[in-house]
Amino acid sequence: MISLLNNRRTIRKYTNQPVSNELLSELLNAAAQSSNTGNMQAYSVVVTTDAEIKKNLAPTHFNQPMITNAPVVLTFCADFNRFTKWCEQREANPGYDNFQSFMAAAIDAMIFAQTFAVAAESAGLGICYLGTTTYNAGEIIDILNLPYLVVPVTTITVGYPDETPPLTDRLPLESIVHFETYTDFTSDKIDQLYAEKENSEFYKNFATENKKETLAQVFTDVRYTKKNNEFFSEKFLNVLKKQGFLD
Amino acid sequence: MISLLNNRRTIRKYTNQPVSNELLSELLNAAAQSSNTGNMQAYSVVVTTDAEIKKNLAPTHFNQPMITNAPVVLTFCADFNRFTKWCEQREANPGYDNFQSFMAAAIDAMIFAQTFAVAAESAGLGICYLGTTTYNAGEIIDILNLPYLVVPVTTITVGYPDETPPLTDRLPLESIVHFETYTDFTSDKIDQLYAEKENSEFYKNFATENKKETLAQVFTDVRYTKKNNEFFSEKFLNVLKKQGFLD
Repeated sequence: MISLLNNRRTIRKYTNQPVSNELLSELLNAAAQSSNTGNMQAYSVVVTTDAEIKKNLAPTHFNQPMITNAPVVLTFCADFNRFTKWCEQREANPGYDNFQSFMAAAIDAMIFAQTFAVAAESAGLGICYLGTTTYNAGEIIDILNLPYLVVPVTTITVGYPDETPPLTDRLPLESIVHFETYTDFTSDKIDQLYAEKENSEFYKNFATENKKETLAQVFTDVRYTKKNNEFFSEKFLNVLKKQGFLD
Repeated sequence: MISLLNNRRTIRKYTNQPVSNELLSELLNAAAQSSNTGNMQAYSVVVTTDAEIKKNLAPTHFNQPMITNAPVVLTFCADFNRFTKWCEQREANPGYDNFQSFMAAAIDAMIFAQTFAVAAESAGLGICYLGTTTYNAGEIIDILNLPYLVVPVTTITVGYPDETPPLTDRLPLESIVHFETYTDFTSDKIDQLYAEKENSEFYKNFATENKKETLAQVFTDVRYTKKNNEFFSEKFLNVLKKQGFLD
């Protein structure tokens, strides 16, 4: 199990083999047994296999090829729609149209999504997360007919692997783990934690190909720019308002 | 593996056996191999075992006994502090002080947390998530010295199980899975999906003990009230502002 987690790779190329409904149900059932807030199960997943709908979703994910090439696309949502409808039918006054409820539902959706991902990988499937989901959540809502109090949080593409990419590097564990309380980083410590990454041929080439002097500039100037982050922040906050999770 | 996921229980009582640093590191290392946004690793975890600090944390989690009884408390954070410091040292202009970056970092923190949870359970440990983390994030920030651009998202208590609670019920899978696009629920469907839960002796007693006519009212009037949700929404939005993730 630990070995499975240590040797996982994100898979972006899939064979033509479809994923059976039986297997999908088994994996989703197992994922649903993981923790959630107060057992309200304030999450949902839309399982899309239809070529036409995947084609419609593709631009919302900046036409990353996984959306159309993967046999299955799973859109995981923070979802207080079903729970709220149940309350209304039971003489109970629901109060889940607010930001705290969105956070609880989004956390639950992520626990559910990641347990599904681990289960899928243990069954020999390959998965890829699409962070574009929160960029274009409004468009995804329209395509998938998501009602009030439902917001997509992440997307996973799934299929049988048609590639074996190398393991992806990670920073030393001390970059992400703090003991007892948080120990902030000195500039020497930052240099030390990033040294291996910055000295690797792979990342040196990555910076050169992107015509940047430092690896960090590839992130700030090309991949995750301040301008884009601010643009998509505004967009996502408006989606939260429209779906009822923010005043 | 699927069987492990299907048979998991949240564990709230732990033996005195400590969790070794070697095992913790092995589990956190495995969890760090899971997916994250652009390999920025915009998350962190504070591992707390000190009795005094756990005692300080306890009221922020409404004195749920797991905080002081569990040998280890893990606070998982959305964290753009380290990455931003690195950018600043590399002539790169970071733009991660916004809501979209918070969402990406919170999603990554949750993927990391849940992979840790699955890994821990596979190693014979028991875990419990504490949803109170977003209620009192500001107080947790003070206790754990979390810097600007770091916000706690969830907490997991960990230890060797000292109880074997029954499996927790879940709604039928069709309550959370939609095919191709979202199919909204008719009132008949809602009745059908909640029938088994509402007819169980456990939940009938639960409503009676809480002096409520319907199970739904236990949630809306006692456990997750509109008033509390709105109060904690405001509080958490202020924390996001203070930590730099919201204007």
